[in-house]
Amino acid sequence: MSKALERRAKLREALILAAERSIAAKGLSGLKTRDLAREIGCANGAVYNLVEDMDELTLRVGSRTLARLDASLTGAESNGPASPTETLVRIAVTYCDFAAANLELWRALFEHRMTPGKPIPDWAIDEQMALFAHIYRPLAALFPKRTAVELGVTARSLFSAVHGMVTLGLEQKLIAVPIDALRAEIAIMVRAMIDGLALTSPQ
Amino acid sequence: MSKALERRAKLREALILAAERSIAAKGLSGLKTRDLAREIGCANGAVYNLVEDMDELTLRVGSRTLARLDASLTGAESNGPASPTETLVRIAVTYCDFAAANLELWRALFEHRMTPGKPIPDWAIDEQMALFAHIYRPLAALFPKRTAVELGVTARSLFSAVHGMVTLGLEQKLIAVPIDALRAEIAIMVRAMIDGLALTSPQ
Repeated sequence: MSKALERRAKLREALILAAERSIAAKGLSGLKTRDLAREIGCANGAVYNLVEDMDELTLRVGSRTLARLDASLTGAESNGPASPTETLVRIAVTYCDFAAANLELWRALFEHRMTPGKPIPDWAIDEQMALFAHIYRPLAALFPKRTAVELGVTARSLFSAVHGMVTLGLEQKLIAVPIDALRAEIAIMVRAMIDGLALTSPQ
Repeated sequence: MSKALERRAKLREALILAAERSIAAKGLSGLKTRDLAREIGCANGAVYNLVEDMDELTLRVGSRTLARLDASLTGAESNGPASPTETLVRIAVTYCDFAAANLELWRALFEHRMTPGKPIPDWAIDEQMALFAHIYRPLAALFPKRTAVELGVTARSLFSAVHGMVTLGLEQKLIAVPIDALRAEIAIMVRAMIDGLALTSPQ
């Protein structure tokens, strides 16, 4: 790698880390090119030599958040033997804990909207979809007669339901819940969903 | 009522309706005092003789949205006899339909944050909590041995789970789902949750 390319790669990494710290501290809406440029010591306009636009920058930060979430979920799965149902409970509770511990970075994953007309790049979609494997695998063990498409739909529904409980539970609004109570409720509802689905599923 | 008070009441109503149209068209982030003042024909500053601040204005619009949601849910409940479980399915699917048909006004209910340090007024909390009765009643019929507190927790969990499915399903992001598929998935998951909860609940 040439010196110039090496310097650019380092500066790009510094930019992404600065954006991550900014989102963690002030949320996605507080992210400002000017602040980031000052922090990494480059001109405002030079930021766009490092990333295409704010969409790419936000997605790169999201990529780091997803990688840490992936590591947390993998840790939960390998934390001693468990039935597929209890693996799903662990995954759901770990998702809740991750969201609570990384509140603004986690919110940014869902708040970010691409500039109108611009599609989400394939690499970002692939990273997001890869996380569903954590839900898909235990579901496939529980419901071996279901097709891949059916399991995909169930994985999405289960994730969305848990995501809703985490989102509203962590909000400081209407239905804020202490984290221990929230974890317990999530465990109860995941078991109920799996038990209920098993009642009507071909085994 | 004096002429002056009458005129103020009419102008206040016009302001709330103008804010409702603005949110429906452009979302909560597009709401601007200046535009509303122009639309109802008063000076910018005069808006704050009509409502306390933008928080109150947004909550008043939310109050109208909640009243229409309440009417939709009541309609769903009285749409022919149904078991408590099927009543809950109807309520969940009606919630999904309402969100799809009132996307920006529905989103505004959850996106709105009070000015830091300012509590949500009691009247707004009461209106929000009143809607939980739609979920609470069929749950109480299904689980007569549960205490009011336990039923309240379950109602909250069930609502949050369905809300998550609706939110992520209606997003034009990762896991957007055609509305008919979303309605079917919600029905399946509500039945599963209720059936699963019944397995472990004292009857």
